[in-house]
Amino acid sequence: MDKKKKIVILSDQTSSSAFPLDPLTKKIVIKLPPRRGGDNRGDVDTLRQTLVRELGTAVTIPLSKMAEIQKIRQSQDQQITVTLAADSFFDAQEQVQSWRLMEIEKGDQSAFHLGVAVDIGTTTVVVYLVDMITGQILGQASDYNHQIQLGEDILSRIMAAASPEGLAALQGLIVETLNSLVEEVCQGSSIKREDIIAVCLGANTTMIHLLLGLNPASICRAPYIPMVNNPEIITAREIGLQIHPLAPLYCLPSVGSYLGGDVIGGILVSGMHKEEGLSLFADVGTNGEFVIGNQDWLVACAGAAGPALEGGVTEWGMRAEEGAIDSVAIDDDFHVTYTTIHGTPAKGICGSGLIDALAELFLSGLIDRAAHFFDGREAFILVTKDETAHGKDIFISQKDINNLMRTKGAVNTALEVLVEGVGCSMEEIYKFYAAGAFGQYIPIESAVTVGLYPDLPRERMIRLGNSSGEGARQVLLSNAKRLECEKIAAKITYFEMNDNISFMDKYAGSKFLPHTNLDLYPSVQDKLNKRRRGK
Amino acid sequence: MDKKKKIVILSDQTSSSAFPLDPLTKKIVIKLPPRRGGDNRGDVDTLRQTLVRELGTAVTIPLSKMAEIQKIRQSQDQQITVTLAADSFFDAQEQVQSWRLMEIEKGDQSAFHLGVAVDIGTTTVVVYLVDMITGQILGQASDYNHQIQLGEDILSRIMAAASPEGLAALQGLIVETLNSLVEEVCQGSSIKREDIIAVCLGANTTMIHLLLGLNPASICRAPYIPMVNNPEIITAREIGLQIHPLAPLYCLPSVGSYLGGDVIGGILVSGMHKEEGLSLFADVGTNGEFVIGNQDWLVACAGAAGPALEGGVTEWGMRAEEGAIDSVAIDDDFHVTYTTIHGTPAKGICGSGLIDALAELFLSGLIDRAAHFFDGREAFILVTKDETAHGKDIFISQKDINNLMRTKGAVNTALEVLVEGVGCSMEEIYKFYAAGAFGQYIPIESAVTVGLYPDLPRERMIRLGNSSGEGARQVLLSNAKRLECEKIAAKITYFEMNDNISFMDKYAGSKFLPHTNLDLYPSVQDKLNKRRRGK
Repeated sequence: MDKKKKIVILSDQTSSSAFPLDPLTKKIVIKLPPRRGGDNRGDVDTLRQTLVRELGTAVTIPLSKMAEIQKIRQSQDQQITVTLAADSFFDAQEQVQSWRLMEIEKGDQSAFHLGVAVDIGTTTVVVYLVDMITGQILGQASDYNHQIQLGEDILSRIMAAASPEGLAALQGLIVETLNSLVEEVCQGSSIKREDIIAVCLGANTTMIHLLLGLNPASICRAPYIPMVNNPEIITAREIGLQIHPLAPLYCLPSVGSYLGGDVIGGILVSGMHKEEGLSLFADVGTNGEFVIGNQDWLVACAGAAGPALEGGVTEWGMRAEEGAIDSVAIDDDFHVTYTTIHGTPAKGICGSGLIDALAELFLSGLIDRAAHFFDGREAFILVTKDETAHGKDIFISQKDINNLMRTKGAVNTALEVLVEGVGCSMEEIYKFYAAGAFGQYIPIESAVTVGLYPDLPRERMIRLGNSSGEGARQVLLSNAKRLECEKIAAKITYFEMNDNISFMDKYAGSKFLPHTNLDLYPSVQDKLNKRRRGK
Repeated sequence: MDKKKKIVILSDQTSSSAFPLDPLTKKIVIKLPPRRGGDNRGDVDTLRQTLVRELGTAVTIPLSKMAEIQKIRQSQDQQITVTLAADSFFDAQEQVQSWRLMEIEKGDQSAFHLGVAVDIGTTTVVVYLVDMITGQILGQASDYNHQIQLGEDILSRIMAAASPEGLAALQGLIVETLNSLVEEVCQGSSIKREDIIAVCLGANTTMIHLLLGLNPASICRAPYIPMVNNPEIITAREIGLQIHPLAPLYCLPSVGSYLGGDVIGGILVSGMHKEEGLSLFADVGTNGEFVIGNQDWLVACAGAAGPALEGGVTEWGMRAEEGAIDSVAIDDDFHVTYTTIHGTPAKGICGSGLIDALAELFLSGLIDRAAHFFDGREAFILVTKDETAHGKDIFISQKDINNLMRTKGAVNTALEVLVEGVGCSMEEIYKFYAAGAFGQYIPIESAVTVGLYPDLPRERMIRLGNSSGEGARQVLLSNAKRLECEKIAAKITYFEMNDNISFMDKYAGSKFLPHTNLDLYPSVQDKLNKRRRGK
């Protein structure tokens, strides 16, 4: 399969990579007290009481496990490994309020404790196999979301889910995607699917609804309220996930229809909610989600962002697959150098390649600040047909550039409106975090050059990688992080951009490269001056 | 069906019949806050938060109910009725720690709130339909435990459950019994099976194991430890009970293999665990369970008791069905008067009739204190063939009397050993409670005459009726009573009678009517004196 790409889970430094491990499931090794005369407790009662004493919380033992408990007690094995799943609630001390027994085994089986962190994107799904003892990622696999066959974008999937059959089909397809990815991460190792005993999952609100078999219709219908933001912990079995049937499944909580758990995961990973200084967070995918704030407050907004960055919209645009041009440089003699994914002959251009191309077209002087070719041509050939995989020229057209400009304008305007909307200015931004389906790949330098991102000192600009997946990994590994996510979600104020009259004003200003007001982009001005001097 | 008998749920006064109602399930009527702009919570989140505020505890909403919540919210109904099931745990304030949503309905549906209290005996099963708003019993139905076809007594059922198929068959038979009784209590009313949303159940430890599909083998094998004493709350669905699928099912907790939840229910109903004075509790069925204690301590023992009181062991013994002789009087001219169940021609003698007959044979002078016929005859005819249903004489033989004497000896000895074992004497007993399959019917006067029960002032002797069923009703209606049961179970010290060397000594003493030491039975001496004077 050539449709796999390397996923960067955390490309740059963040403040949240070290934390105490306290995963969604627990394996504890205990010894049951020897049976004494006069002790008429059943083996189930003795085990429950031992666990309650050990954990200091309530422990539920499902009926389906009681017979096994007696069998294990009857064998004279001294050590018993008990696997427990956290429940949804926290007590006043912010500790998990109760645990549910999932498994009981002879001997010490605690050296083996596996879960999966999942990022479900509208387009791509990534599964990380996580060692819950060390916190490390043991393997990963990604694939297209099989739901694509019933609709490319979110809206068409919501439409397809309108009938009960459509909803069931969409749920079946994402579960099928997950099951095959789980199978894949286990391949070539001794790990069996049933060894995976916990799942944590970051996704947008619609994807969560479809995964759980909940009709997402209300998401795209006034007043645009989802069915649920926080489904809390359910079991893998309930949705047909083929791992341990009693495995707990937790979805990072959403804030609303357009601000999903994937963004909450990103905030968690950035650590911006614990910083004194102001941070700006941009999750750039087909839609964009933007968050500003610090330890005291968080304000977020969302809007359409990058359809132009996806395959299909631009002439030679394609997904980030083998053969996609992912970086481009154009020198002052208009010679192009480029790289492709896996180094194979070029087939098209992916999002990061397109942003690079736009920046380089501008810096090399091929297009003007209004993003029009200086010489009036209709297109610029990046790779000639003798070098491509298909024997056709790969070019970027004026129409492609116009599409890209709309995307960059939308993202840039949203950021500006958000920053001004909370009464701040860009200079006050202490850290800028880029995440999301495209944000994790887009080169920061080119993104600033075209005015997609603000022009901040580069050490303040951080690519978070797949922060939805990383957020899921952290929450999988830490109940405290789970509570932290719920607190982040509760803290966010949603800022309705459509109501904002300054949006269209600003959008007009962002139609230039990098911006109408070049003073906002001093580093781009520097680059232009250097290149122009060279000529 | 002629196999139904009238069940007395609480024949005499007890101290525990009035208590605040706080049932295992809750129906609350709420109004969800109107949707305001800027509130991006999903309907599920809004409902959960409203319930958490209302109840002051955690609330779980199962995935299977989320879609319904949105549907109900979308309709403009203002009032919503939410049905919730308690979980197993209590917080530090002894309140239910969390609740689980079972049902959500439009409008105020709180006027209708039904549960069942169940008593599962080895022989007879009784289902009470309980109005959880008033606490009243709306109807009741009883039947033989269908498991009887695979074994009359507990031991033969444990044997039959040794194979997985046998265990499944026994579970299927008791569930079938319960389902048909539930059907029966609903008959003739508008109540549907699904309207029953909670179950509380009293039974001996083996019956609970079989109901839950747990192999009871360890109950009759050293060290005689059950698989579980307290299974905690499960759902009706898990065992195939055809009521509301999410209905919580709670079994009164056992203390050990031979001290079941039926006895704990009896103690609860008696209130002996809250009294300053000393109480003695006797649950007389095929096995006997005996408890002594007060508010500070409780000691219990168990042993074989009344096989002679059941059908099959004595010549004309039969179950308490239509046509069974249930009371007997013999005057000094040896004329017999009797009553039968439903007043139909006599078919045989049930337990209460046998005890009456033994007492009357003794008082009328037909048998001596060693329980032998004075005139050496082999049998005494109670009803001549011209009056019986089957045209045969119904008699009580010397062999029957010997069997009855063994039963009375076993019960009486157990009571004496228990009282002395804790360092007390019979005079200190402030209240004597009689319960159990036979205890609820056996006439106290005759039971004292034959020396089955101690000779205490009659106002201190109380028949509790079906206290297993009544205990189940109280726990169904009160979470505080549920916690009280668990505390009673935890408080009981089990006294191993088989280890006790004085048992055989005392058993020898109890072979006489009413006892070797007549001084222990002053009221019987009085009766004898009166009758002898009459001659």
